[in-house]
Amino acid sequence: MQYYQPLLELFNAHLDNYIKGLDKKQPKELYDPENYILSLGGKRIRPLLCLIGCDLFDKKTHDALDAALCIELFHNFSLIHDDILDKAPLRRGQPSVHSKWNTNIAILSGDVMFAKAFHVLKNCEASKLKPLLNEFAKTSIEVCEGQQLDMNFENSNSVTVADYINMITNKTAVLLGCSLKMGAICADAHPDDANHIYGFGKHLGIAFQLMDDLLDVYAEGDNFGKQIGGDIIANKKTFLLLKAFELVSASKKEKILSALSNTSAEEKVQTVLSIYNELNIKAFCKQEADKHTKQAIKHLHDIKARSEKKIHLEELAHQLLNRQF
Amino acid sequence: MQYYQPLLELFNAHLDNYIKGLDKKQPKELYDPENYILSLGGKRIRPLLCLIGCDLFDKKTHDALDAALCIELFHNFSLIHDDILDKAPLRRGQPSVHSKWNTNIAILSGDVMFAKAFHVLKNCEASKLKPLLNEFAKTSIEVCEGQQLDMNFENSNSVTVADYINMITNKTAVLLGCSLKMGAICADAHPDDANHIYGFGKHLGIAFQLMDDLLDVYAEGDNFGKQIGGDIIANKKTFLLLKAFELVSASKKEKILSALSNTSAEEKVQTVLSIYNELNIKAFCKQEADKHTKQAIKHLHDIKARSEKKIHLEELAHQLLNRQF
Repeated sequence: MQYYQPLLELFNAHLDNYIKGLDKKQPKELYDPENYILSLGGKRIRPLLCLIGCDLFDKKTHDALDAALCIELFHNFSLIHDDILDKAPLRRGQPSVHSKWNTNIAILSGDVMFAKAFHVLKNCEASKLKPLLNEFAKTSIEVCEGQQLDMNFENSNSVTVADYINMITNKTAVLLGCSLKMGAICADAHPDDANHIYGFGKHLGIAFQLMDDLLDVYAEGDNFGKQIGGDIIANKKTFLLLKAFELVSASKKEKILSALSNTSAEEKVQTVLSIYNELNIKAFCKQEADKHTKQAIKHLHDIKARSEKKIHLEELAHQLLNRQF
Repeated sequence: MQYYQPLLELFNAHLDNYIKGLDKKQPKELYDPENYILSLGGKRIRPLLCLIGCDLFDKKTHDALDAALCIELFHNFSLIHDDILDKAPLRRGQPSVHSKWNTNIAILSGDVMFAKAFHVLKNCEASKLKPLLNEFAKTSIEVCEGQQLDMNFENSNSVTVADYINMITNKTAVLLGCSLKMGAICADAHPDDANHIYGFGKHLGIAFQLMDDLLDVYAEGDNFGKQIGGDIIANKKTFLLLKAFELVSASKKEKILSALSNTSAEEKVQTVLSIYNELNIKAFCKQEADKHTKQAIKHLHDIKARSEKKIHLEELAHQLLNRQF
């Protein structure tokens, strides 16, 4: 990450400047929530990927700053609306927008952030607007589709591992691919290279989400900062659970389902975890994540760009995937 | 309107084609509401204005079809979300999206329609994308601001007539101006002309909303199709009410406020109406609408376009404003 520190600082300065401008905006009920969520922090991984996608092709990263801001605004809009949909009281340890204000304000301030994402995008070079708009709007649609699929999964007992991979691809992974690709478009990258960097980001995103599923159960408690087994307690259909369903007999599936309906969180986690261990689910999940990591790295290798640039990106990928293990 | 019938048919065919495409889209929970609201009908006035804005400058209106669709998608997205905010059970006499499905689905299917509006826009000619995106995104932001101002007004007793004109400008009028201007941009109109057609649409929109306020109270019942005094019963801060507040003494303002807190709808309407009549509020409202109509027509006259084209637009303006009187 050291190599990318200057890019992150460049983006943070751009974002700070944007946030300062919000103070003067009216009506305040609309812009205070935007100011609030943007000021809650976050790793800014998506806008950073956008600048990295530009840097990879040796173009001045200033040219991709507004594309990066567009993506960060979109990401934060989606957090505001997702928190309403998921009834999440907290975001980054602070009250979510609908908890701090109300649902109406969260809907509308989310909407205006989505509109502003596109308004910022129009600052990009005119000759690149068509591919940028295409990529960004297409990805926005897919993210909504992913969120809907995730909601559908809650009430379905026939979700397969393939359905799950499709859902996380849309909900999470395509935006990472899109971020890198928009940076590449700003850098006049060849369309083939732009598609490869998209593929790199997408598969990395899938691998990242799979590792996230794994960490929920197998992380070293203190480092992870979340409760062990939180996904199990919340009955979330993760890769681990769906893979277990795939591997077991019908009678054992019943046992898992009955464990999930247990009201004691501790017993629930213990029962499900022992089944995961018995089936060696951890290895299956790592294997699937590895498969996508390899696909990501293959895309990276196929890009025609300077290898000393690509090395940093490969390092970043491994850092992201090897956390907490 | 006769002259514009072919343009309306052209758009309707384009929209029908788009709606047909929705049948194949997944997940259905996301696209059924879009299909539903688009199929509820409506006058399609905004996309028609977009095609009119193109036709005015003698350009093939086919070139503006996707800009027109973009606007109609945006308009319907805003209806879905506004109905949630306003807790409106009905839309065009049918259940609103959040009543028919639920709030989560209404939020997310609205979001995807907003994203699709931008995705459709990218089909426009590359050389025009920058001004189109600028205009459309700026207007989307203003529409959100207008909706927030409208929500703020509900809980404020210090709203002025000027505040109200500002609110309806943002919530309603700018989208009409934007529709015409996007059509003009598609037709390569000179920027001055594009701004004049925007001004025409905006002022026409303000006049139209003022006439709508008036019709709520002074329409011939059967033609209007709504309950007389519906705005009074709902305590809506219309031009009529705010103008009355401006004209009366503090004690009379108290009388109106106390009438508005009356639980009998009939008495409420009668009391407020008699005060309106006493103050001749109808004339003030007509005068304000006239002022904006004149500003609209002035903008139209200043446009460098063939006068036989402009005549039809002037006729349309008068038709829209003179309904039910």
